[in-house]
Amino acid sequence: MSHKRPTVAFIGTGVMGAAMARHLLDAGYPLVVFNRTKAKAEPLLDAGAIWAGSAGEAASMADVTITMVGYPRDVEEVYLAPGGIIDQAPDGALLVDMTTSTPTLAVRIAEAAAARGLAALDAPVSGGDVGARNATLTIMVGGDAAAYERALPLFEVMGKTVTLMGGPGAGQHTKMANQIGIAGTMLGLIEALQYAKAAGLDLARVHAALSGGGANSWSWGAYGPRILAGDFAPGFYVKHFVKDLRIALDEARTLGLALPGLGLAERLYARLHESGGAELGTHALWLLYERGEQAAPVDHAGD
Amino acid sequence: MSHKRPTVAFIGTGVMGAAMARHLLDAGYPLVVFNRTKAKAEPLLDAGAIWAGSAGEAASMADVTITMVGYPRDVEEVYLAPGGIIDQAPDGALLVDMTTSTPTLAVRIAEAAAARGLAALDAPVSGGDVGARNATLTIMVGGDAAAYERALPLFEVMGKTVTLMGGPGAGQHTKMANQIGIAGTMLGLIEALQYAKAAGLDLARVHAALSGGGANSWSWGAYGPRILAGDFAPGFYVKHFVKDLRIALDEARTLGLALPGLGLAERLYARLHESGGAELGTHALWLLYERGEQAAPVDHAGD
Repeated sequence: MSHKRPTVAFIGTGVMGAAMARHLLDAGYPLVVFNRTKAKAEPLLDAGAIWAGSAGEAASMADVTITMVGYPRDVEEVYLAPGGIIDQAPDGALLVDMTTSTPTLAVRIAEAAAARGLAALDAPVSGGDVGARNATLTIMVGGDAAAYERALPLFEVMGKTVTLMGGPGAGQHTKMANQIGIAGTMLGLIEALQYAKAAGLDLARVHAALSGGGANSWSWGAYGPRILAGDFAPGFYVKHFVKDLRIALDEARTLGLALPGLGLAERLYARLHESGGAELGTHALWLLYERGEQAAPVDHAGD
Repeated sequence: MSHKRPTVAFIGTGVMGAAMARHLLDAGYPLVVFNRTKAKAEPLLDAGAIWAGSAGEAASMADVTITMVGYPRDVEEVYLAPGGIIDQAPDGALLVDMTTSTPTLAVRIAEAAAARGLAALDAPVSGGDVGARNATLTIMVGGDAAAYERALPLFEVMGKTVTLMGGPGAGQHTKMANQIGIAGTMLGLIEALQYAKAAGLDLARVHAALSGGGANSWSWGAYGPRILAGDFAPGFYVKHFVKDLRIALDEARTLGLALPGLGLAERLYARLHESGGAELGTHALWLLYERGEQAAPVDHAGD
């Protein structure tokens, strides 16, 4: 019952992508890689991956193409530009976008893929660089069940919790729900500790005392100690979170749904981004409050 | 090394107070009780507690007086009104307010107590009715170390995580930090699931898929399943949460601290309270969004 493993093209070998691609290589999948900055792919090339000169060229050599690029405009380009993945992938290939991108674009890609006889999934992840390294990512998948079954062995090499959420775009929608949830827990974390500081309390004692109770969250546990230590290195970049919150807000508006908590978080994080925080971790929202710059951003549109 | 247990007066035997008082009775503390509605104290009386005709009278019979009443105005009345606890407690008695109340009032009570040779602590709790029943409450204490040491054996009968947070008012400040944290996690929970619903996703699948990741929180785990089941019974009452959020917002303003997330949560919960949600659980914020009533409340004062 030994099957030859399909060849995988992996497009985008940044911090997340490189770790994910490495797991595929270690699991015995022949790997073709492309990245805008070739240097970031070198460790994979040293470990046996083959370099391709473009995303489309990589896809042309593979049974499965996985993308993990930066922004929706990058996703659009690698898939839909002339000479891109959909132009060059062999008939019957499976395309999997694991970038956090827009549900709308995921649907467009799925339609363009289907028109060419290709299968496509949107499969964004959560769990960050640690999850990518430890293969413990949560993978939220949108697309049809047959394509999902084909991709599942690869997902199981990269992640721990893998769920088919629905048709095309459902993976991206689920990721947006995740980011909206995080927006709330970050507000709770930052404001609770800001209050405690203003009240003159010992922050380490407050963090410990409340960790067992109703204010607790993944963010509370992961980022509280870093805030107390004054360590604002990313974890998850502010610039990426701002991207995600904007996608979520745009999609919510399209759906006719007002989410005032999300709107507030987007305004605060955009302000942090504009004031030099883009390359910091999301818990650096603390610094915006420290500077007293959290008070102003009221959106009079009422969302 | 057997010591006679001090007599405890317990003022306020509602859902929380009755469960807490019962643990003291079971641990062998002679108990005097007073409650505005005597019927709610009957099970304790049947179990051996002694009835007193007023809060002051109960305090006059006890070495330690514990209060668990409704609102700051009730706290003020039972402690500071003529014939109240501070008037009638015997010299050297220990007074412990476990109501969630204002830090400012806690300081006033501590000062009035000290002027009469009494010790006072503020010691609000979190963990809800379940925590009170199972003696797993988190107890956040403000006051001096000697009074804390005296009260600690009683706290350990009622709770699990007990911490001296600082001087008078520090317990209440810590509880406010806790409620501010919960305000954020509730926004995250409700808005994430509202988005998922609007996007047409299967809510149970979304809740399960995201439970292992960054959007997770105590609120996510405790209230997500109840929202999915359409069960909005309290847990924690909206009317009490509105009280707490208002105290927190007032205190933050007094401290010169803008907390826009808290401000938003307070406006949303106040609206839910006004529109018939007072007796529901805090996760009934879901219903406000279901009715589309979350969009309007923008505070142009900019907090």
